[in-house]
Amino acid sequence: MNAKPIQQLDRVIHEKGRMAIMSMLAAATELSFTDMRDTLEMTDGNLTTHIRTLQQAGYVAVSKSYQKNRSLTTCALTGDGRRAFGQYVGLLEKIVAQAKSKS
Amino acid sequence: MNAKPIQQLDRVIHEKGRMAIMSMLAAATELSFTDMRDTLEMTDGNLTTHIRTLQQAGYVAVSKSYQKNRSLTTCALTGDGRRAFGQYVGLLEKIVAQAKSKS
Repeated sequence: MNAKPIQQLDRVIHEKGRMAIMSMLAAATELSFTDMRDTLEMTDGNLTTHIRTLQQAGYVAVSKSYQKNRSLTTCALTGDGRRAFGQYVGLLEKIVAQAKSKS
Repeated sequence: MNAKPIQQLDRVIHEKGRMAIMSMLAAATELSFTDMRDTLEMTDGNLTTHIRTLQQAGYVAVSKSYQKNRSLTTCALTGDGRRAFGQYVGLLEKIVAQAKSKS
């Protein structure tokens, strides 16, 4: 077995909560904090913590605006984030292919 | 996006070190502790901790014997472990398919 693809998996993306956030953002241009929270059934605190980690890694950009006197927080993948996610999915694909060929 | 496959990922298997151990064991009948340690480039302590977690989940069986006056520790997947790993890989496959269709 070649363990390299598993060893190369980006720990920032590999955590389940962040993997779900990155997957959602990869399929969209941008998403509101509330949409993500509701779809992923996360608490505000949990989502905030994960987004901060992704922001610190340079994978997610956060912008705040006001709409009808309410603050609106939206998130989007950065170029780096989109590349890192693509690479992560490519590694998962190799891992799956390897697991299916040998079991 | 359907977040269910990500949410259903088994946390016991999802950790990278344990994912590598399970992948190695899925491709073999049984493996020695030293073979796994050397292939996965893990420390004794790290491998021991992960194997204990997998053992407690009922996924890995450990047996100790003596060969030429040296103790030999071998590990193998249990039936439950093989089923759980198959299910885990199936979920990864769905996640990859979803990511590739939308990005």
